[in-house]
Amino acid sequence: MTRGTIGVAILGATGYGGQELFRLLAGHPVFRVVHAGSRTHAGREVAEVLPQLAGFFRGLRFAAAEAELPAEAQAAFLAAPHGVARALWPGLVAQRPDLRVVDLSADFRLRDRAAFDAHYGGEHPSFAATREFVYGIPETNREAIAKARNVANPGCFATGAVLALAPLAEAGLLRGDVALAATTGSSGSGAEPKEGTHHPERAQDMRAYKVLEHQHLPEIEQELRRLGNPAPFELAMVPQSGPFSRGIFTVAQLRVAEGVDAPALYARRYARETFVRVRSGSPALRHVARTNFCDVAVTQKGTRAVVLTALDNLGKGMSGQAIQNLNLMFGLEEGLGLLAPGANP
Amino acid sequence: MTRGTIGVAILGATGYGGQELFRLLAGHPVFRVVHAGSRTHAGREVAEVLPQLAGFFRGLRFAAAEAELPAEAQAAFLAAPHGVARALWPGLVAQRPDLRVVDLSADFRLRDRAAFDAHYGGEHPSFAATREFVYGIPETNREAIAKARNVANPGCFATGAVLALAPLAEAGLLRGDVALAATTGSSGSGAEPKEGTHHPERAQDMRAYKVLEHQHLPEIEQELRRLGNPAPFELAMVPQSGPFSRGIFTVAQLRVAEGVDAPALYARRYARETFVRVRSGSPALRHVARTNFCDVAVTQKGTRAVVLTALDNLGKGMSGQAIQNLNLMFGLEEGLGLLAPGANP
Amino acid sequence: MTRGTIGVAILGATGYGGQELFRLLAGHPVFRVVHAGSRTHAGREVAEVLPQLAGFFRGLRFAAAEAELPAEAQAAFLAAPHGVARALWPGLVAQRPDLRVVDLSADFRLRDRAAFDAHYGGEHPSFAATREFVYGIPETNREAIAKARNVANPGCFATGAVLALAPLAEAGLLRGDVALAATTGSSGSGAEPKEGTHHPERAQDMRAYKVLEHQHLPEIEQELRRLGNPAPFELAMVPQSGPFSRGIFTVAQLRVAEGVDAPALYARRYARETFVRVRSGSPALRHVARTNFCDVAVTQKGTRAVVLTALDNLGKGMSGQAIQNLNLMFGLEEGLGLLAPGANP
Amino acid sequence: MTRGTIGVAILGATGYGGQELFRLLAGHPVFRVVHAGSRTHAGREVAEVLPQLAGFFRGLRFAAAEAELPAEAQAAFLAAPHGVARALWPGLVAQRPDLRVVDLSADFRLRDRAAFDAHYGGEHPSFAATREFVYGIPETNREAIAKARNVANPGCFATGAVLALAPLAEAGLLRGDVALAATTGSSGSGAEPKEGTHHPERAQDMRAYKVLEHQHLPEIEQELRRLGNPAPFELAMVPQSGPFSRGIFTVAQLRVAEGVDAPALYARRYARETFVRVRSGSPALRHVARTNFCDVAVTQKGTRAVVLTALDNLGKGMSGQAIQNLNLMFGLEEGLGLLAPGANP
Repeated sequence: MTRGTIGVAILGATGYGGQELFRLLAGHPVFRVVHAGSRTHAGREVAEVLPQLAGFFRGLRFAAAEAELPAEAQAAFLAAPHGVARALWPGLVAQRPDLRVVDLSADFRLRDRAAFDAHYGGEHPSFAATREFVYGIPETNREAIAKARNVANPGCFATGAVLALAPLAEAGLLRGDVALAATTGSSGSGAEPKEGTHHPERAQDMRAYKVLEHQHLPEIEQELRRLGNPAPFELAMVPQSGPFSRGIFTVAQLRVAEGVDAPALYARRYARETFVRVRSGSPALRHVARTNFCDVAVTQKGTRAVVLTALDNLGKGMSGQAIQNLNLMFGLEEGLGLLAPGANP
Repeated sequence: MTRGTIGVAILGATGYGGQELFRLLAGHPVFRVVHAGSRTHAGREVAEVLPQLAGFFRGLRFAAAEAELPAEAQAAFLAAPHGVARALWPGLVAQRPDLRVVDLSADFRLRDRAAFDAHYGGEHPSFAATREFVYGIPETNREAIAKARNVANPGCFATGAVLALAPLAEAGLLRGDVALAATTGSSGSGAEPKEGTHHPERAQDMRAYKVLEHQHLPEIEQELRRLGNPAPFELAMVPQSGPFSRGIFTVAQLRVAEGVDAPALYARRYARETFVRVRSGSPALRHVARTNFCDVAVTQKGTRAVVLTALDNLGKGMSGQAIQNLNLMFGLEEGLGLLAPGANP
Repeated sequence: MTRGTIGVAILGATGYGGQELFRLLAGHPVFRVVHAGSRTHAGREVAEVLPQLAGFFRGLRFAAAEAELPAEAQAAFLAAPHGVARALWPGLVAQRPDLRVVDLSADFRLRDRAAFDAHYGGEHPSFAATREFVYGIPETNREAIAKARNVANPGCFATGAVLALAPLAEAGLLRGDVALAATTGSSGSGAEPKEGTHHPERAQDMRAYKVLEHQHLPEIEQELRRLGNPAPFELAMVPQSGPFSRGIFTVAQLRVAEGVDAPALYARRYARETFVRVRSGSPALRHVARTNFCDVAVTQKGTRAVVLTALDNLGKGMSGQAIQNLNLMFGLEEGLGLLAPGANP
Repeated sequence: MTRGTIGVAILGATGYGGQELFRLLAGHPVFRVVHAGSRTHAGREVAEVLPQLAGFFRGLRFAAAEAELPAEAQAAFLAAPHGVARALWPGLVAQRPDLRVVDLSADFRLRDRAAFDAHYGGEHPSFAATREFVYGIPETNREAIAKARNVANPGCFATGAVLALAPLAEAGLLRGDVALAATTGSSGSGAEPKEGTHHPERAQDMRAYKVLEHQHLPEIEQELRRLGNPAPFELAMVPQSGPFSRGIFTVAQLRVAEGVDAPALYARRYARETFVRVRSGSPALRHVARTNFCDVAVTQKGTRAVVLTALDNLGKGMSGQAIQNLNLMFGLEEGLGLLAPGANP
């Protein structure tokens, strides 16, 4: 297959998820952006609205959010906020039943309506369609993704937490209390300026928020339970805001049964995964920033285990993973367009 | 008492602990810096070596580290690195038996020789003298400090963790696993440039280090056990490095017994403490940076409790607390020279 | 005079100018905040709205913006945005003809109506009153300030630029092109989140804005010309946004006549100024952040001269200087409440 | 030509210049790193020493600095510090006369021995060889580079300044005083921790250094004069250190003759350059970080002109440009391996 043979659309193209999709797709050898929908910038050139893209995507203009997809679009990334994707999706698939969809919002991630309502709320006219969506972490769900027409791309905290715990869950070794403390960069709050991302106050700050009640907790639990762990376990999560723009650093503290060798388990489990790299000591956010990698390190003392993961919330935690999913959905090599190393400084 | 009536010495005066002592003592109404010892800058003016002090401490020059204290020095802050304080102290007290000493290093904090050796090591010719030192967190140990001649000023992580757990420990409610995840600013690594504090790599990074084996763990345990908790508890700590210069943000996750109302307990316990402020939701590092405050917030869901503390590693976590201790040791008002609010941006 | 004997009001108290006034006045030995006006927070406790002030200003609640000043208020800081001060002031002085006013906005700084309209615009019902205001840089205008009832506190860029050029202007040595390139921290944009201060985009960015047309240029020129320079000179300014929260770093490049020794001139001129410190090489923002100091350095090669100034845009560039002015207006020692050194890390 | 058909060597491979070469060459379609020389890490795997490269360059180990190049190496990047390249080069070309060399150091940039000695000094056994080196800014020197065997890659400040002034110089319009004020990120100081890049002090700081005497000034002048400007002009430069890790933001202030339309001149001159993008208002560092772009904006008022450039000091200011040069030297498309857009957050 040669460069740009599969047309893709980005809907909700000017949020940070959309901007990162553009950045990554500028160099993708197979996917070509043929449509970009935006509620606020319809008619304007992409590179004029998003100046970091000057020189790229020449001639591409934003279409209105509701504009029909061009015939050449075989897939769509829904990069709109929660609440918008659920409204857009039914029309899209009615229009184009063969379309592959990767939804970056939370609208189709949760199977449990009560959990969804508690955390996201609002009308959800197409909640039943959630069953048609496959949860999109390739490392835990690769085969289902490859066959899926619709993928619900996970939350950024969820990706870090699931990859931190999946090897234990798959081995049926997760049990008891699991204490998660995870720190996110400011881009996780989106492209809209807010109090919590006001530079004078964020630049050297650290604080927690939504303590024990972050909305990604249900999807983490749902995915870990799907992996078949028999013993009961209880997750708690303390999300924190850090003074960096990109990245999520996750600390998971838990007990394992006597005899379990967690470091060895993780080394084995992730040995063949391209995008999960096992580190000694600790991963570092700077090495995964602007990449699709999730770096992992495991420390164990007796039955006490600590798993650390580091990823870019807009990369492996969002748009990078969305492309990884779409690669799989088209039978392409999973890492296509995503295999660039990070920088050190 | 009027301004500057008690002479104090700072030994090891050019590290960050010493620099912060100068900053705070510049405005102290009773303590006056009459002597500053430095191994590397003897003979030079203080404000020439530490340019942020230009206009202050006029005429004060660094003395050699071993120089005798002037007669007017009634107290000494030992702000030298671990290993140096233990060598300096015996000579100081031999010379001046009535001297009040606050040691900012770890040399006299631990009663357990094995724990000390495991984490700090080296010769310790005066380890027995540890018994003459009182552990210096005023909020848990005020009376002993007020009577002490020698105070071992706590580590920065230790201050954040002890203040996060002391109300439970004092009430005998600490039990089971306590998972600590704490993030420090770069000034915690000291004034000497190092790989881990190299700006190009630290500026947007986050990572963990010394996972489950940080040297402050023994002093946290020692102090919490001293507070008389009957039930067994086990602390684990994951120290992290954040991309800010000042502050420690601590997350403590644990279970409490049915019926315990942790938020109410903390509100009551800290109601009369000037320097521990109970917050709702989460404290924020920016509000305590460059202050002597430790802000605390408690969240509870069922038996799951989360305690968050935020402090400045050089303030309440080091030099601010050292001055608070010395205020007490001289029968002064505890907050003298320390009662300035933080800034928001 | 003892602590807190002069009552002062802060109007527009929740912007960054107001917040910094609170921070500094918390420790002022003579001024006591007896009134705080806020359009949006009337009725709420100060320390609840501004959590960094927890423990300070107990019992003080925000009054409505238009509320009458209490009798004990002998002075008012107008810390409201441009456009609001001009509307507030006439009512204030009608109500209290003896009130001392320091206005932090630009509303009463410019004598030239055309320049004012070009940069600030809008209705200005009390523009004629500008003549009753004295421009408030103590180092260039101390005597007039001491006698003034109304002071127009300068802009942050203006303070840095005037202090960079005043010694030459006073000596009549300013001539030809003066190229100013100055970089401001993000707090200069105010407390309201905006695109330009959105952390994910500001954190590692640098850019210029309002190139050659910044609104502080006319007040810089006005003040320098007032100082009596006979030769013509032309200022140009390139304002830049830097990824730090506090500070303005100014570079002034110009030619001096043969024989002029600029470094000696500055050393002499500023030798007796408490808040202007002459440095060798370069000043550093970190040493003046959260202080009232403006540090200056001068380099000369032949007739080419470079003057550098560093100050805190909320300190000497705003609220610190406002307090310095009010100290003078009450015949107090100029540095009262402002003489704290900066920190190094 | 297919992926990896031209073998290249990196000598001095673990500095930031070398690290960035690795990052960029990981995705280069023609160049393949076949040799990496390091004084300190000989024998170790590249991705073990440089953990951001985990998963890339599998099997490649560092060779000793003096190790002979493998036969397949047709080109070498000298990424060693100043002083080392000059010692290495004679041996390299003796060994392999057909080798293409791009030297990232300053050792072969200057034709004027006195200027070289004044700024870099030390023995320079091969200074005469400087004549065999072509100065490597493709936008001003493309044809000579394409024919060259040896290219002296420019300094980072120099690239920003030359691209800011070249259109005027080429048009013979540069004259009078040119005031440069440029701010560099911390990675410009190299991979070795130093006082000036110590995070606690750099994180929120700004300061100037080497005022009017930066070592890049002579090469800027040399290149601008080579472009044939007839009128005399005088450059002055104030280098500043900013609290970001990557980037150089340059402000050039100057006068142009009546009638000159600088914005139009720049728009025309750079219209066909892939890597120089003309912006309105101001470029922004964040949009060029980690790219090979230099963004430019020009503002003019009467005869006063301001030119702003933004580039990444390790990208277009160093390793990106080095690859751009080598592409040209092999007759490849200039942008090969370099055409990735920047990110916004």
